[in-house]
Amino acid sequence: MLTLKDARRVIEAAEKKAEEIGQPMNIAVVDAGAQLLAHIRMDGAWIGSIDISINKAFTARAFDISTEELARNSQPGDQFFGIHASNQDRVMIFAGGIPLKGSDGSIVGAIGVSGGSGAQDQAVAEAGAAAHTC
Amino acid sequence: MLTLKDARRVIEAAEKKAEEIGQPMNIAVVDAGAQLLAHIRMDGAWIGSIDISINKAFTARAFDISTEELARNSQPGDQFFGIHASNQDRVMIFAGGIPLKGSDGSIVGAIGVSGGSGAQDQAVAEAGAAAHTC
Amino acid sequence: MLTLKDARRVIEAAEKKAEEIGQPMNIAVVDAGAQLLAHIRMDGAWIGSIDISINKAFTARAFDISTEELARNSQPGDQFFGIHASNQDRVMIFAGGIPLKGSDGSIVGAIGVSGGSGAQDQAVAEAGAAAHTC
Amino acid sequence: MLTLKDARRVIEAAEKKAEEIGQPMNIAVVDAGAQLLAHIRMDGAWIGSIDISINKAFTARAFDISTEELARNSQPGDQFFGIHASNQDRVMIFAGGIPLKGSDGSIVGAIGVSGGSGAQDQAVAEAGAAAHTC
Repeated sequence: MLTLKDARRVIEAAEKKAEEIGQPMNIAVVDAGAQLLAHIRMDGAWIGSIDISINKAFTARAFDISTEELARNSQPGDQFFGIHASNQDRVMIFAGGIPLKGSDGSIVGAIGVSGGSGAQDQAVAEAGAAAHTC
Repeated sequence: MLTLKDARRVIEAAEKKAEEIGQPMNIAVVDAGAQLLAHIRMDGAWIGSIDISINKAFTARAFDISTEELARNSQPGDQFFGIHASNQDRVMIFAGGIPLKGSDGSIVGAIGVSGGSGAQDQAVAEAGAAAHTC
Repeated sequence: MLTLKDARRVIEAAEKKAEEIGQPMNIAVVDAGAQLLAHIRMDGAWIGSIDISINKAFTARAFDISTEELARNSQPGDQFFGIHASNQDRVMIFAGGIPLKGSDGSIVGAIGVSGGSGAQDQAVAEAGAAAHTC
Repeated sequence: MLTLKDARRVIEAAEKKAEEIGQPMNIAVVDAGAQLLAHIRMDGAWIGSIDISINKAFTARAFDISTEELARNSQPGDQFFGIHASNQDRVMIFAGGIPLKGSDGSIVGAIGVSGGSGAQDQAVAEAGAAAHTC
């Protein structure tokens, strides 16, 4: 079970990465029930990314997949095209959401990051996720 | 302008109070634009209070009033009855949301707390708000 | 047919009244189709009143009634109780929305005001409506 | 901080441009919190563009980017494809929304225009934005 302490450790690692690359981010962590555990908006980060960070985390746990990988299956013509309109439009299909795994490999939650390019969001989310699995 | 550092100090003070009274809470802080700056869900706090804490903070800044005071004007027959259905149902009309004031007395954001009785939510929100104005 | 020029005259009169009573307001005007023609938020007016002012105007034209009068029929036990949850929660049942009448007495739109007490909102809306019917 | 007076100057300049090109428009301005400050619908402008103009302004401030530029990153296969479904469907990914900058270069709000072709919306929004930075 993911605790608030876990979520804070994940967020702290992601935040550090965001500072390193010089791009303020919204960072969110959800638990195994895909429900929000914690969120921060770094100073200067986009207002529109509040919702996106939370919903990238939701998406990564809702389907136990990174949003980057989901994106590759959700473009027009792909097998999941249209999934972004499901779940009251909470499904985000671009990079920045990653499942968090427990020590036994089971998925216990997810991190969602939004505030920069897709590559930046993904790098920050990976830094956060790494802090959990370590 | 409210910073993430400010929001964390407010949340920390509120969290400490919640621990003292032994009731896990959701705690959220919004900025002057009523937009989310940070949120935490303490271990064991209600899932349904995620949304409520965020929206109590929204409400307190949206109308520059504590949700406890707004509640007293929003009951059946009162001058604002029905306001809870405005703003896409984001207006919370029970205790736990309090505006945060800057050193010059202007309102710079708000805290929202949800997870216990109205009195408990209010006490935790007041502890958080006090940490800002100090 | 209500024109943008008409809407501006109505808003100007309402704004003047709001200045007189010293309470910044959100003021909106809708046309005969209950669709927004113009809106202003005076400096310092509540963020949460943006939505309410627009929807008070919507309500006043949607039912061809002042929201103050509608309120008297929409409390628990009243004939219209529950109407505030209809129309995607856009129906406002407290004072501040007034239909605008053409020279032949037909209703051509409405004004909606939000930002103070019910009495203040009503006074400002009346000042705006008077500028149209004069 | 963007004032109502600022918003009116921006809208006036945009409106003048719309008249020059002979296309009635909806024009909206939001503040730094992405919250509506003022809106007008010119006589004959599309009803469906009320929402779009307001949400183009929201989008331009929410992500500190013109909606025209955002559009270039949000097509199928692009890094932000799917962003239009975030933020409760308020993200507009076609031309007509432009951030407004303060004298120090910081973004203080945004203008959103809808009512014609993408090129027309963009031209009118640029005329409005120019009136602010002058």
